[in-house]
Amino acid sequence: MQNLADRLLDAIDKKRNPSCVGLDPDPEKIPEHIKKRALREHGDTLDAVASAIVDFNTLIIDAVADVVAVVKPQIAFYEKFGAPGIQAFLRTIDYAHEHGLLVITDGKRNDVDNTAKAYAEAHLGQTKLLSGRSVPVFNADALTVNGYLGSGGIKPFTEVCQTQGKGIFVLAKTSNTSSGELQDLVVEGKGEVYVVMAELVKEWGKEFIGTRGYSSIGMVVGATFPEQALRLREVAPQALFLVPGYGAQGGGAKGVVPCFNPDGYGAVVNSSRGIIFAYLEKKYKDLYKPTEFHAAAREAACDMNRDIVNALQDGGKLPKNWK
Amino acid sequence: MQNLADRLLDAIDKKRNPSCVGLDPDPEKIPEHIKKRALREHGDTLDAVASAIVDFNTLIIDAVADVVAVVKPQIAFYEKFGAPGIQAFLRTIDYAHEHGLLVITDGKRNDVDNTAKAYAEAHLGQTKLLSGRSVPVFNADALTVNGYLGSGGIKPFTEVCQTQGKGIFVLAKTSNTSSGELQDLVVEGKGEVYVVMAELVKEWGKEFIGTRGYSSIGMVVGATFPEQALRLREVAPQALFLVPGYGAQGGGAKGVVPCFNPDGYGAVVNSSRGIIFAYLEKKYKDLYKPTEFHAAAREAACDMNRDIVNALQDGGKLPKNWK
Repeated sequence: MQNLADRLLDAIDKKRNPSCVGLDPDPEKIPEHIKKRALREHGDTLDAVASAIVDFNTLIIDAVADVVAVVKPQIAFYEKFGAPGIQAFLRTIDYAHEHGLLVITDGKRNDVDNTAKAYAEAHLGQTKLLSGRSVPVFNADALTVNGYLGSGGIKPFTEVCQTQGKGIFVLAKTSNTSSGELQDLVVEGKGEVYVVMAELVKEWGKEFIGTRGYSSIGMVVGATFPEQALRLREVAPQALFLVPGYGAQGGGAKGVVPCFNPDGYGAVVNSSRGIIFAYLEKKYKDLYKPTEFHAAAREAACDMNRDIVNALQDGGKLPKNWK
Repeated sequence: MQNLADRLLDAIDKKRNPSCVGLDPDPEKIPEHIKKRALREHGDTLDAVASAIVDFNTLIIDAVADVVAVVKPQIAFYEKFGAPGIQAFLRTIDYAHEHGLLVITDGKRNDVDNTAKAYAEAHLGQTKLLSGRSVPVFNADALTVNGYLGSGGIKPFTEVCQTQGKGIFVLAKTSNTSSGELQDLVVEGKGEVYVVMAELVKEWGKEFIGTRGYSSIGMVVGATFPEQALRLREVAPQALFLVPGYGAQGGGAKGVVPCFNPDGYGAVVNSSRGIIFAYLEKKYKDLYKPTEFHAAAREAACDMNRDIVNALQDGGKLPKNWK
């Protein structure tokens, strides 16, 4: 089974793009023509919302599939719509896979050993039916997890990563303004909590380092905290960083450069609302009609790619073979 | 809207039982007669698993509804079976409500502001359909959450608690053996991470204190760490503790006494496997056939109730009006 870090870096090289599109569908921002069709077919139900989400996501995926290597559906925006929402989540993942994209499910799941195993099987592994036959459920390539419970809560995930060639990203320094309340506290003799977490992640990831020198056990590092990112890059040079908070949350292209190693790799930068709802933003809304939301998303994804590549070049961190 | 802490304590008084049954259905342990029926009706599918889970849970709920006040379905064991699993989760919650039980959904959800709001709406609040009309989705009474992201990740939950009369339990000291790797580290000038978290929870819960003196913003404190529980009881006397780890995870009745205040309240003690799969345990398996699994669960729930009440009495902590 090929190592996830290797698969991810190969996919990034192929597109020459280390960015990721976050599929966080907010029905209020989904264009009217899609919602009208869904309402007509399903009435005012959760099924209608799920159907609108699938239509929206598939058009977004069609539009960005040749630009980016990875998409990241945030499960909260699907769970919110119950079982139909989860079905839409699953169809989104399948559709992304059919279009050659890698999929990181953003769930920040965490629990004690036995329960963490159930999440690992759901998102990354296989689940047993009543006959004992195993089937994949979400079948994502990687999942975000929260390490507050320590190694016993992480091991069930890494075990599935080992057998299935999958990966996880453990929360280290999150992108939100209040992340420091706990994460920046200084542990006696050890440094900040986010650094302690990064050291745990490094330890958990030691046996997952692929041929390209990166581990499939990565961490989440917010684009909004470049100084902390620099520090974490030093603590765990072989960890892949999943970097949220680009765009709508305020982090720019220059701010994500510290997340990359001098070789130009090591980070996957996510933007969600800034891409999928670009048609509502000042920069694009005069250029695209709501019915062309996916074209706006494609342009925003290309702009983001160009901005990051330029920032990497300015920082002397463009991968060698991209020049 | 009545305060959740008040509702919970009233329900506990009514049953004279501070324990909670964890609905963590493991298909491998569900009796054969239930699985056979599900396989016959649905084939070897996720729907069959979901159907078996619903049958199992409804019989458990029927059996324990007059013994306990609260049930706690762990969503991982439903999410594992995709959309049909989530449908089973929802039906379990509804069925528990129809039988007068309070429901804590155990999801340990966490995310940045905007995303945490989606989880809060899914589990505790209402979600908007395409027309703008709002409907409840899971409609639980309380949800477990992880506070690693700080107050910005918690506020969306407390906002929903405020408007809907619901509650949350934030992870402080979890029951698993490796919980200390992060939670027991000592923060400079502040004490252990789990104590810091408890102080945050206390702060978040200040405006949620009901007429009975407890807050609807509680915390998770493992039954396996009585010393830490004692410490947390001092730090946050008005916080309700959700106490997992009783039974299968090794914590006994005596060990949970420190989670209670001198008034005999303050904790909800959960047992999952020890109750719902009691028919497989040494103590009960000669008394009950697999087809009587729910009767075994009822007896185990009664035994747990008696053990905790006795331990409270021995510790001088039995609620006054229970004597």
